[in-house]
Amino acid sequence: MRKAIVLVSGGMDSCVTAAIAKDMGYELYLLHTNYGQRTENRELKAFYDIASYYDAKDTLVVSIDYLKKIGGSALTDEKIEVEKGNLNRKEIPKTYVPFRNANILSIATSWAEVIEAERIFIGAVEEDSSGYPDCRKIFYDKFNDLLSVALAKDIGLKVETPLINMKKKDIVKKGVELNAPLHLSWSCYKSEDKACGECDSCLLRLKGFMEAGEIDPIPYEKFPEFYETYLIKRRGV
Amino acid sequence: MRKAIVLVSGGMDSCVTAAIAKDMGYELYLLHTNYGQRTENRELKAFYDIASYYDAKDTLVVSIDYLKKIGGSALTDEKIEVEKGNLNRKEIPKTYVPFRNANILSIATSWAEVIEAERIFIGAVEEDSSGYPDCRKIFYDKFNDLLSVALAKDIGLKVETPLINMKKKDIVKKGVELNAPLHLSWSCYKSEDKACGECDSCLLRLKGFMEAGEIDPIPYEKFPEFYETYLIKRRGV
Repeated sequence: MRKAIVLVSGGMDSCVTAAIAKDMGYELYLLHTNYGQRTENRELKAFYDIASYYDAKDTLVVSIDYLKKIGGSALTDEKIEVEKGNLNRKEIPKTYVPFRNANILSIATSWAEVIEAERIFIGAVEEDSSGYPDCRKIFYDKFNDLLSVALAKDIGLKVETPLINMKKKDIVKKGVELNAPLHLSWSCYKSEDKACGECDSCLLRLKGFMEAGEIDPIPYEKFPEFYETYLIKRRGV
Repeated sequence: MRKAIVLVSGGMDSCVTAAIAKDMGYELYLLHTNYGQRTENRELKAFYDIASYYDAKDTLVVSIDYLKKIGGSALTDEKIEVEKGNLNRKEIPKTYVPFRNANILSIATSWAEVIEAERIFIGAVEEDSSGYPDCRKIFYDKFNDLLSVALAKDIGLKVETPLINMKKKDIVKKGVELNAPLHLSWSCYKSEDKACGECDSCLLRLKGFMEAGEIDPIPYEKFPEFYETYLIKRRGV
């Protein structure tokens, strides 16, 4: 059976990415990284829930908490506050962790070489990605160029980004279509019990569910106005 | 002052690389990674000795022991034996750690973005590198291509590989010329007290000193025949 490593943060995008890899017939190896982010425990729970839902062949959890030592992001540096969500912001938000995805893909590549996997799936999304430079298609194209010269064995390894051109609403639709366990996923950057409903990640997620005409199954502390309005409208129908 | 991160394993090549970066006028930030390799403690000592010799502005030591979890190399997996050195071997040796240098460069890049360094120096050597795929020039070219699209800030960051086309003897000569603290460096893959004199790394190092007409200042358990002969010849002169 062909093997694929799927990077599963525990968020909605990675949950749907796992669903896509499974649907393509791959045997799943799930990789999760902890880097001292605020919601580390909640994300880890989501990871194991998703792994068990998909009966993953193997899981690997890696601490890359050196990113916390290095600092420079609100996700890992407690001195920098997580901004309230603003979907019209133009600059790169403070939650950006420098070069994070390259760190994670490098770990995945080391693992892929040992188990001889032929694909690494990552749920990066270019349009809805808050402008993170390591979520753009060109980044993955260049990473694949690197892979083409960097491996000891010719295992045809490539990074796949099935969501890269999707909008959040398409991801929700895809997840629903493939029966992905969205209820097990966790996207909030700020809280672990109920999602905050305020950070960029919560706003993007709820906007996605709204635009897909679906209802987000996870609990929220409070909803942003647009989603509240949507719920009222739905109930009214 | 322009900042450079130098990857310092503690070996001779990284020691000379630090000397070159210093000589070019950079302020030095030294990065060392532990990955559960057999000689971890000895390498770490060499790292701090070199950092203090060069009065580094900052040091960062990062554990990437997930590479041990992933396995696949004699350097990190105790079930795989370190082969006796053989400089004529054609295949990639068992000490190859899959995609290791990309993992390390990714960490360096995260750090570089935070401190706004403009260079990352790595002492990779193509010709004398035992065939590791991530020691070839093309690997670094592709990594620089990746950097050109991957950063949030345009800090002009590039990876420099000043030794890439050198032979070990040129590295020894360069080190002697720049007064690099070769006596503080450690290259052996196998031992921590005295260098074994048998592994690939010891053989390459001693061959380099011999061909440069120099004498290696670190202690050895035993010398390979070619170096023994060279010493006798030198004494005879």
